[in-house]
Amino acid sequence: MKLILAIVQDKDANILSNEFIDANIRATKLSTTGGFLRSGNTTFIVGVEDDRVEEVLELIKQTSHARQQFMTPPANLDPMGDSSMPYPIEVQVGGATVFVMPVDQFHHF
Amino acid sequence: MKLILAIVQDKDANILSNEFIDANIRATKLSTTGGFLRSGNTTFIVGVEDDRVEEVLELIKQTSHARQQFMTPPANLDPMGDSSMPYPIEVQVGGATVFVMPVDQFHHF
Amino acid sequence: MKLILAIVQDKDANILSNEFIDANIRATKLSTTGGFLRSGNTTFIVGVEDDRVEEVLELIKQTSHARQQFMTPPANLDPMGDSSMPYPIEVQVGGATVFVMPVDQFHHF
Ligand code: NI
Ligand code: NI
Ligand code: NI
Repeated sequence: MKLILAIVQDKDANILSNEFIDANIRATKLSTTGGFLRSGNTTFIVGVEDDRVEEVLELIKQTSHARQQFMTPPANLDPMGDSSMPYPIEVQVGGATVFVMPVDQFHHF
Repeated sequence: MKLILAIVQDKDANILSNEFIDANIRATKLSTTGGFLRSGNTTFIVGVEDDRVEEVLELIKQTSHARQQFMTPPANLDPMGDSSMPYPIEVQVGGATVFVMPVDQFHHF
Repeated sequence: MKLILAIVQDKDANILSNEFIDANIRATKLSTTGGFLRSGNTTFIVGVEDDRVEEVLELIKQTSHARQQFMTPPANLDPMGDSSMPYPIEVQVGGATVFVMPVDQFHHF
């Protein structure tokens, strides 16, 4: 048995939750504070048998890895009143921090 | 020293908190998100000496184990306008997922 | 790699967060429930290399240790209508509970 603690971006949390449900992996979601420190993240606690650790890591990696994305800024952000259309900029989204931890005992009451 | 992570139903959390206080066991409660994934759960972090692990597990088991409960549905849920009284149905409540984890160092500053 | 779980008072959480940022230590903050059980606390999850554990512990100790503080109660708490000024009383603030835990695998996707 291992406990996997996964911290992902809020925007990836719903998809990851659904992947866990599809794979019949029980996960608990902790709310993280909005705020100055890594705000907008969701923490998952997942308990799995040792032989499913790789599967869980793969799900997290696939749904939540850091990647570049094009985003079009809203037009009214232009401070000069320039009438040209805004163009898409590339931003990094996603990214997951994952700890796999040993477990001495697991119980389900 | 062990860290016990216990995920219980919200409806059992208050009683369990009081049991911990009565037993002089220090517990920290984390809020879980309302939502689609195991919503309505509360996560406790409990730090205890090895020789009190069994006692903590027993408290969690006694207050939070899965059990059947009779619940009477509200009368106005009957879509047919039937005037008969609603009868109690049996539902499962409670249930706890518990991890006992090794601790390298414990500090209280 | 170690996972450090630190539970500190809310009033010390902002300063500790800033210390972590200054030291380039990545921390995730979990909200704790307001309520009857150790309310007003914040839980940090910090992942660090073994050789930085002492540094993290020292930051937590310095910013969040229990200490005595003088606090002046508000004047309108006097039930006798006594017109004398309230005098400062000494209260304990702060205090941190810290677990250093082993980690089998650490990933950053
Ligand atoms: Ni991709
Ligand atoms: Ni029972
Ligand atoms: Ni001091």
